[in-house]
Amino acid sequence: MRVGELSRRTGVSVPTIKYYVREGLLPTGELSSPNQARYDEAHVRRLRLVRALIDVGGLSVAAIKDVLEAVEDPGRSVHAVLGAAHDHIAPRQGGPEDAARDAARRRVTELIARRGWEVDDANPAARSLADALAALSRLGHDRFAEVSLEAYADAAERVAETDVAYVASEVAREDVVEGAVVGTVLGDVVFASLRRLAQVDASSRTYDPERGW
Amino acid sequence: MRVGELSRRTGVSVPTIKYYVREGLLPTGELSSPNQARYDEAHVRRLRLVRALIDVGGLSVAAIKDVLEAVEDPGRSVHAVLGAAHDHIAPRQGGPEDAARDAARRRVTELIARRGWEVDDANPAARSLADALAALSRLGHDRFAEVSLEAYADAAERVAETDVAYVASEVAREDVVEGAVVGTVLGDVVFASLRRLAQVDASSRTYDPERGW
Repeated sequence: MRVGELSRRTGVSVPTIKYYVREGLLPTGELSSPNQARYDEAHVRRLRLVRALIDVGGLSVAAIKDVLEAVEDPGRSVHAVLGAAHDHIAPRQGGPEDAARDAARRRVTELIARRGWEVDDANPAARSLADALAALSRLGHDRFAEVSLEAYADAAERVAETDVAYVASEVAREDVVEGAVVGTVLGDVVFASLRRLAQVDASSRTYDPERGW
Repeated sequence: MRVGELSRRTGVSVPTIKYYVREGLLPTGELSSPNQARYDEAHVRRLRLVRALIDVGGLSVAAIKDVLEAVEDPGRSVHAVLGAAHDHIAPRQGGPEDAARDAARRRVTELIARRGWEVDDANPAARSLADALAALSRLGHDRFAEVSLEAYADAAERVAETDVAYVASEVAREDVVEGAVVGTVLGDVVFASLRRLAQVDASSRTYDPERGW
């Protein structure tokens, strides 16, 4: 198909498609004449993946480029690609280096050991978890890690088992890898949205407007 | 304390503190002389809240301003403030208006009814959930909603119950509201990080590097 049809099929404008080709997010189409390239179903699929990662996942063009390079490297194992993808789609990290951060890092190391999780302390998700716990601690919410962290970890294990079982049911290597990337990014949004909805429901049962709450 | 000590206590630079005061994120200090303002513990706490929402939560200055206005309006019930906060800290939304989106919206409405959740279909989280499911569907992952959505919803209910119980144990109204905002934003990061760690663990048990996976 020509670029105009690719645009109609995906809802992505022609200038944006050309920008993605220049940035290496989308392979060049096959040249059918010096000024005209032809695209196929693989381009449609790739373009939908890029738009999902940008629109719903909030990833930058640079992060998507890195993730796609890892996906397309046939020498990497699925587990290694997941690691590379996680490096680029880690939750946000930040905050000062202080005693709260040191204590939060120790807490994360202990949690990983207690759960028996086979993960490296240097995993970016371990860092983002420590950053979030440190921020909670600075705000006087040390109690969160004591009261709620295990329930979060139980729920996260359940979701992760579902994720890995979902992806493992794919047959082709590229489907496994693409599914893992998509599932990680879009799964965050799915879970955060469901958590909000369930919070509204739980809060409507907990707070009584007659008390002014 | 003077602005220099407020800066040392929180790790936020003096120009940034002044910027937050101008933007209305931080109340003006009490003027002790025409050129010098004094700050107190309430400023330390507010500044830590603002930094956590920016650094870890990734919120914009404009979004934080709106959330803080809702928090500080004593006329609003806790449930109403949660609603206002959710409007500003909804997961990302986006993607084309197409048949996939229409089908995803119907699926979300059915899920809410099936779960018996007391929430409005117009809740921003219902929209972001539909957007994520629509993006998955466009990528050929309709199966996700069939296979994994209920497990996600079970886990989300468990986390939301924990969240509401945690916040409800606060006594003062302003602590309840602040705790809810902090817990929603930082809780997303905590859960997403834990999910990544549990995924790495589950994937290390599922994929055998000897198979090239």
